Amino acid sequence: MITPPSAEARREAGERLGALAVPAGALGRLGELGVWLAACQGQVPPAAPSNVRLAVFAGDHGVATHGVSAYPAAVTGAMLGVVAQGRSGVDALARAHGVHVRLVDVGVDHESGHALHVRRGSGAIHLEDALTHAETLQALEVGAAVAREEIAAGADLLLSGDLGIGNTTPAAALVAAGLGVPAEQVVGRGTGVDDAGLARKTAVVEQALQRAGARADDPVDCLTALGSADLAAAAGYVREAARAGVPVLLDGLMAVACALTAERLEPGVAAWCAAGHRSTEPGQSLALEKLGLEPLLDLGLRLGEGSGAVAAVPLVRAAAALLGEVALLAEVLPPDA
Amino acid sequence: MITPPSAEARREAGERLGALAVPAGALGRLGELGVWLAACQGQVPPAAPSNVRLAVFAGDHGVATHGVSAYPAAVTGAMLGVVAQGRSGVDALARAHGVHVRLVDVGVDHESGHALHVRRGSGAIHLEDALTHAETLQALEVGAAVAREEIAAGADLLLSGDLGIGNTTPAAALVAAGLGVPAEQVVGRGTGVDDAGLARKTAVVEQALQRAGARADDPVDCLTALGSADLAAAAGYVREAARAGVPVLLDGLMAVACALTAERLEPGVAAWCAAGHRSTEPGQSLALEKLGLEPLLDLGLRLGEGSGAVAAVPLVRAAAALLGEVALLAEVLPPDA
Repeated sequence: MITPPSAEARREAGERLGALAVPAGALGRLGELGVWLAACQGQVPPAAPSNVRLAVFAGDHGVATHGVSAYPAAVTGAMLGVVAQGRSGVDALARAHGVHVRLVDVGVDHESGHALHVRRGSGAIHLEDALTHAETLQALEVGAAVAREEIAAGADLLLSGDLGIGNTTPAAALVAAGLGVPAEQVVGRGTGVDDAGLARKTAVVEQALQRAGARADDPVDCLTALGSADLAAAAGYVREAARAGVPVLLDGLMAVACALTAERLEPGVAAWCAAGHRSTEPGQSLALEKLGLEPLLDLGLRLGEGSGAVAAVPLVRAAAALLGEVALLAEVLPPDA
Repeated sequence: MITPPSAEARREAGERLGALAVPAGALGRLGELGVWLAACQGQVPPAAPSNVRLAVFAGDHGVATHGVSAYPAAVTGAMLGVVAQGRSGVDALARAHGVHVRLVDVGVDHESGHALHVRRGSGAIHLEDALTHAETLQALEVGAAVAREEIAAGADLLLSGDLGIGNTTPAAALVAAGLGVPAEQVVGRGTGVDDAGLARKTAVVEQALQRAGARADDPVDCLTALGSADLAAAAGYVREAARAGVPVLLDGLMAVACALTAERLEPGVAAWCAAGHRSTEPGQSLALEKLGLEPLLDLGLRLGEGSGAVAAVPLVRAAAALLGEVALLAEVLPPDA
């Protein structure tokens, strides 16, 4: 069980929010966000996050060769290069908003040689396990190590992103397993698969859930059977952030599926999370509802890579500024009031 | 008729959007926003707005003493001081997002002595005209002069905000008159009026519309009969920005009611506008629909002062960054592809 954010700071921040020289509730979602941030930081008012760090977990997925994606698996490697060159969507957003980007190749299908690379691609989950049990534990630890390194670098807000053709399929499977709902409730069009592709993708997730059977009840077995190296790493990352008491801003389906899985691994993770952007993937909304989170933005972004979380970073800073800088009613009222 | 944004730049920006190395439509609302910005600037890719300037138009309203607001009229003067000291909600947001704030006291009920001050408060619109015809023309020119000054100071994106107890009542009346709809469709709770207050407010707007009669068909007469000095100035401001070819990011009910009125004064204003934040006031959504605009944010903010527009400024910058910095598919594909 993870230590929750400070109840005392949450109470004090709520009182401060109510004492600001604004109409009751006038800060809307930014008021709630400021209170959450204060609770996470254990201080009122909260500081605006100034060292925001994103880890993009990349990997290939065996299902990508089974017609579940609008793009061929080879695009993963190409996109890896685009992100590394700073030319991807999330790179542009991160520069605009002062967010540090780190690319973590956990499971792309190539010879990496890097210590954080767990394996070349993950298994096609409808036919075989994504990982071995040992690889799952290794990937969870890779994510935790990345979180620790980013925190050591001064991170006061952590984001996770995803990169890898086919990754919405295992992510949807993790959500279905975590919530106990059938495949058709969680499967979406990903980067833009057509109706036939959507049907194939749904069948793949359903077959994977049947193959996993009761193993889906255990979150580690769930990652082994239905996940991937990159998703297990992202789950380990968000769990470690929560353990260390560093708030996390979630992105789309992959980040939220991993937060849901991390919450199953160790209850209390979700309290350290806020949601940046509403995904067009139905599984994200279902998982967010379970976690008690409501996204800040709904802009129809489908870029992946953590872009929806990065786009929401200015709102977190705005929330801190409002709670910290707006005058108190007591300061504004005339002395005899 | 105002010269529209560049159709050529819009076309070219749309082509660039379609050529980016991202799935089709993956930039969502930020893609559309980038194309709009490019059309306004007449260049592809567009530059991220770096000199964003907000003018907050302040005024008192005769209706405020007739039970339409949750707050007494004296709060306008107090809030003027809070904004001037940089301690208001919009000040905090503007500092967080690098937006310049200018407070323009057009019609607060006090001796001002400033050349831009048109009158002490505006008339209670259900009983009398808000302004004389001459005052309406003067206030429109005040707003235009402010826009010219802000543009001369280098503004590449203009925002307008509002300050003044009771101002949602004349703004709702302007929307009702502009759209030809009854009072109950446009009146909301403003800063938080109760059911009885909402009924009084609706009755005031209905009475004002009946009093104005056919004068509501003319936008200048409409401002004279149903508006206020500060709202007329805000309408003049957005019209002048559009005339000068400077894009405008709209805030809540007041800004949108004034943009609607400006569009009636001179068609073509709306093409230079984007909408920052969905107001809880029903009149804002109706007017936006008429103008063909859809807000970027929906955070439940009810701060006024232009805060919803300021909160959306990072999204405009993000849109420019995405359209300008993301790799083109042709750059990413291998040479033989």
